Amino acid sequence: MFNKINKGDEMYLLASQLFPYNRSITGNGVRKTLADLKAFLPSLSFHEVKTGTKVFDWEIPREWNCNDAYIITPDGSKICPYKDNNLHLVGYSVPVDKILTLEELQSRLHSREDLPEAIPYLTSYYNEDWGFSISHNQRQKLKKGNYRVIIDSSLKDGSLTYGEVKIKKNIPSKNSKEIFLSTYICHPSMANNEISGPVVTTFLLDWISKLEFRKFNYRAVFIPETIGSIAYLSKNYKSMQKNVIAGFNISCVGDNDNYSFLPTRAGNTLTDKVIKHVLTFKVKDFKEYTFLNRGSDERQYCSPGIDLPVASLMRTKYGEYSEYHTSLDDLEFISSEGLNGALEALALSIYCIENNITCKVTNLCEPQLGRRGLRSNLSTVDHMKQFNADVSNILAYADGFTDLLSLSEIINRPLWEIIPVVKELIDKELLIEINE
Amino acid sequence: MFNKINKGDEMYLLASQLFPYNRSITGNGVRKTLADLKAFLPSLSFHEVKTGTKVFDWEIPREWNCNDAYIITPDGSKICPYKDNNLHLVGYSVPVDKILTLEELQSRLHSREDLPEAIPYLTSYYNEDWGFSISHNQRQKLKKGNYRVIIDSSLKDGSLTYGEVKIKKNIPSKNSKEIFLSTYICHPSMANNEISGPVVTTFLLDWISKLEFRKFNYRAVFIPETIGSIAYLSKNYKSMQKNVIAGFNISCVGDNDNYSFLPTRAGNTLTDKVIKHVLTFKVKDFKEYTFLNRGSDERQYCSPGIDLPVASLMRTKYGEYSEYHTSLDDLEFISSEGLNGALEALALSIYCIENNITCKVTNLCEPQLGRRGLRSNLSTVDHMKQFNADVSNILAYADGFTDLLSLSEIINRPLWEIIPVVKELIDKELLIEINE
Amino acid sequence: MFNKINKGDEMYLLASQLFPYNRSITGNGVRKTLADLKAFLPSLSFHEVKTGTKVFDWEIPREWNCNDAYIITPDGSKICPYKDNNLHLVGYSVPVDKILTLEELQSRLHSREDLPEAIPYLTSYYNEDWGFSISHNQRQKLKKGNYRVIIDSSLKDGSLTYGEVKIKKNIPSKNSKEIFLSTYICHPSMANNEISGPVVTTFLLDWISKLEFRKFNYRAVFIPETIGSIAYLSKNYKSMQKNVIAGFNISCVGDNDNYSFLPTRAGNTLTDKVIKHVLTFKVKDFKEYTFLNRGSDERQYCSPGIDLPVASLMRTKYGEYSEYHTSLDDLEFISSEGLNGALEALALSIYCIENNITCKVTNLCEPQLGRRGLRSNLSTVDHMKQFNADVSNILAYADGFTDLLSLSEIINRPLWEIIPVVKELIDKELLIEINE
Repeated sequence: MFNKINKGDEMYLLASQLFPYNRSITGNGVRKTLADLKAFLPSLSFHEVKTGTKVFDWEIPREWNCNDAYIITPDGSKICPYKDNNLHLVGYSVPVDKILTLEELQSRLHSREDLPEAIPYLTSYYNEDWGFSISHNQRQKLKKGNYRVIIDSSLKDGSLTYGEVKIKKNIPSKNSKEIFLSTYICHPSMANNEISGPVVTTFLLDWISKLEFRKFNYRAVFIPETIGSIAYLSKNYKSMQKNVIAGFNISCVGDNDNYSFLPTRAGNTLTDKVIKHVLTFKVKDFKEYTFLNRGSDERQYCSPGIDLPVASLMRTKYGEYSEYHTSLDDLEFISSEGLNGALEALALSIYCIENNITCKVTNLCEPQLGRRGLRSNLSTVDHMKQFNADVSNILAYADGFTDLLSLSEIINRPLWEIIPVVKELIDKELLIEINE
Repeated sequence: MFNKINKGDEMYLLASQLFPYNRSITGNGVRKTLADLKAFLPSLSFHEVKTGTKVFDWEIPREWNCNDAYIITPDGSKICPYKDNNLHLVGYSVPVDKILTLEELQSRLHSREDLPEAIPYLTSYYNEDWGFSISHNQRQKLKKGNYRVIIDSSLKDGSLTYGEVKIKKNIPSKNSKEIFLSTYICHPSMANNEISGPVVTTFLLDWISKLEFRKFNYRAVFIPETIGSIAYLSKNYKSMQKNVIAGFNISCVGDNDNYSFLPTRAGNTLTDKVIKHVLTFKVKDFKEYTFLNRGSDERQYCSPGIDLPVASLMRTKYGEYSEYHTSLDDLEFISSEGLNGALEALALSIYCIENNITCKVTNLCEPQLGRRGLRSNLSTVDHMKQFNADVSNILAYADGFTDLLSLSEIINRPLWEIIPVVKELIDKELLIEINE
Repeated sequence: MFNKINKGDEMYLLASQLFPYNRSITGNGVRKTLADLKAFLPSLSFHEVKTGTKVFDWEIPREWNCNDAYIITPDGSKICPYKDNNLHLVGYSVPVDKILTLEELQSRLHSREDLPEAIPYLTSYYNEDWGFSISHNQRQKLKKGNYRVIIDSSLKDGSLTYGEVKIKKNIPSKNSKEIFLSTYICHPSMANNEISGPVVTTFLLDWISKLEFRKFNYRAVFIPETIGSIAYLSKNYKSMQKNVIAGFNISCVGDNDNYSFLPTRAGNTLTDKVIKHVLTFKVKDFKEYTFLNRGSDERQYCSPGIDLPVASLMRTKYGEYSEYHTSLDDLEFISSEGLNGALEALALSIYCIENNITCKVTNLCEPQLGRRGLRSNLSTVDHMKQFNADVSNILAYADGFTDLLSLSEIINRPLWEIIPVVKELIDKELLIEINE
């Protein structure tokens, strides 16, 4: 039995707390974020990968941190204050203390004419560089003269930080099949993309840890995008290829406008089937992308030779809303309803995988339901009509080969609604579970 | 060569004769029906399964018979007379001789507000009970007072009765492949559902018995629905699983409004392919249901572990017309055209299976048709154009792997129309039949 | 890199030169046509198959030649002059020198009421016969009286003539896989059907012979339709079945109205995939026929037991335009643009087959493109955007199993446009070619 989830307000509160930290692919913003999450996930472990470590075709870069950054205008006022909004500073900007003319400064400024109030988000991880983001409206008002630029940052040997949570199954079995979750923690003050991801993942892990029955092990990572998943895979891909039966890249799960699905490269894995099942029966109207629309860590998880079954169940996808990668993707863009809907859809996906057993009838021909109290005469009551139809249809298709996910699609019912009926039929010895 | 069938009037006459008998899942109405059918099917054998016999999860119930039943109104008139219409009495009603007030009687009466002239059809096979069906209009007129209820029925140890016909192939071969027909005889005075079924099955068996060439054995059963098919399967399913290559549940084959198709559970058996082929080319516009819409003995034949290829080719399906299971499903609801159309569609299905051979060309490249008189120059005459196209297309696709059913669908032609061309090509040694 | 082709004018000139010759299934018109083609194809070899030779179910007929033919009207004027237009004479007409009344003559005349200006094209290869074709308008004006008919033809033991070109691969490999081209040379003065076929085939062979890299052998035949392909197959089909991986029947490649595709019988061969790919990405809007619409030598190449993967990429298909098989299918019906478009589509098809390699990435996870100069920042420039997308998508799908034809369809790009990117990725050692 799947119980409705009501964690929207708690998640929104956590998102508000983590929102302003200066996350990047390395640095103390990531550590601070993980430290706060540990209050919710006691088993969260922290890992550091040293600058210079080779990870497949890549190398861990130097660690970046920033104390402050701003620009002093010719009339002495302070603009682009990092301490007010860390989006003002281009990520990985090197230290600077310089005086520039307005013309010289312009080449270092970034704004969006199409979104004149927005501070755009930019980074320069692998080229030494620096710059500031500013709203187009403010940029228009800058006057001629000398500007002093202060960036009090550091770029030094250090490490890349990520967090990992492992939850063990609580039902004994010989295999060590695993479900994998991945979310990223490398963007500063943005809400849908990104803080919704780690927040929903945290509450999903809490929900998983409280499941009465768990057939599968769980592994979740909180990593910087791209370099983080590459670093993690370089250490772990062999065991993951052996054990992971389904995986979710959790990103853009905060707004309340849409649901969307980005499949694995293969397109037909258990993860793909489950997400499509959940969205089809839970929200009906959702947007289905192809792997050509990919843009997050599934690029690594699904790459040739890695081939993990990792897909994304999202609200509004990165790149598909105008506020994306600007200061307008803020705490008003997301909502407790949006977060809760995403959490519930992901929890339903996990529930479907945990309960996707294969059953077989114990009788040849239909059993006599009447004497077992399984055939209601109250056929005018809708609930009993559905129960009668479910009993009949489950018994008609439980052939020992068709798993419940397939069976529920054949009979056009959400898996989570037929599970109680399946359990009653098992209790009454009309069905048995087949061990694959 | 398939010859048109014209048996509508004969079938309608037989349906009229059998219509009024008091059929139920047991009892003399069934025996009387089978006795009348034996006049048309000399090889029909009668079988009795004793009360109390275990058949899979079920047990054969006591035998029910009825001499008379009616209600005496406060003013002394007789209503709900069983002898006028046996639908007035709820099937399997226990014996009763009682006086009841109108209020007490009301709880024993059944009528349909939505069909105020109809006497609804009800039964209570497995709960000891009794009741009467009455038109809603008549029920409205009942006055206060005492009513005497008489049910002169018996419910005793006895047996369940069914009939069976076997027709042997008349072409020698090593295998013993079989085509299976099933129809039910357990409903009293109703026409489309049910008497059309046994009548059309009887004439279909007569047609089969007169086939000049029969490659397959045939087995047909006339049984009460559900308990009858379960009883029959419990004795015969192993040999049926070995031999049955196609099967038809024959029901609702009397009206002239629609054609419809209810597939097997698997959905892709020879039976499914043949019925779809026949309806596609014979009637074009037909209704295709899914196995979720099942409701007759395919529930047993296609159940997991039984898995026989049994589907239904029907006129208007049970449950899909308002007169269903009421006195309005009477002899006016069916017609000789309706019965004949169904018989012809079923005979065409049998014809297609009997003639579904696999052929191979005897030449590499196209043969020279001109010198064999197979290429008409009268290409303006439509008939010859079609003949020329058939010759060319059959020779193009007869690769020794594609059976004629598949070949005829590729070239978009009904199988029964290309059979004469195939036979001519075999005669002229341009094709040979491949023995599978 | 596929370079645009600009051979329309040269091809139109050659078509004009060959147009008037009196081609038939045998005779000097075929020899003259092949002699002219040899100027363009030095390796073209000529072959003669003697009258009476058995070829599968057929026999090579007597050779037909004609010096002159015409009719003298009652008032002494000459009509239906063979020397002006050889379509006037029914192909394979026997020698005649006779005087006939108008009534007698009428039964020997052929015209088209629906195309009153057209001289229809007729033959009588396998029945000894004679006749004349005439425009319907002229026929209407014929007056009563005696007509002298002169046909100075000969029908004698001789041979059937065909041409063959073989081009060897220039890349060493163990296998001897082959691409097959077939075009027919048996119709007199008609342009789209037929002279466009041998002309485009000639220029396609010239293009193939100049390819810097050729992995496959090529074999092309210039044959009379039906009897020619049957004769050729009877000598060569075993080696062709072993080696031919793709084949093209080249016909109706001259007009500039449509592109069309007639598949193989199997429908899913490499030839089918390549033609659909080329037409989908080159012309977008094209007509796709089924094998039921066949009408040329694919009837032999795809016949059961021969089963070669031969399909047709055409402009407007035979039988699908009103001028077909009349004098209106003339040099105005085709154009240099039409011929060039067909040549380019066929060359692209060959290019796709030659370049349809299978690649695999050399790294696990995405490689770092930035330090290899493969990631442009100029993402506003459309060309670079496409390049970046191609690099990313090719690396995402190059799994060592998906050939480039399939890969290019997954990423929705023409194969010929991604080949330069694939080659750059191979050069930069991010991809390797897998030898199948």
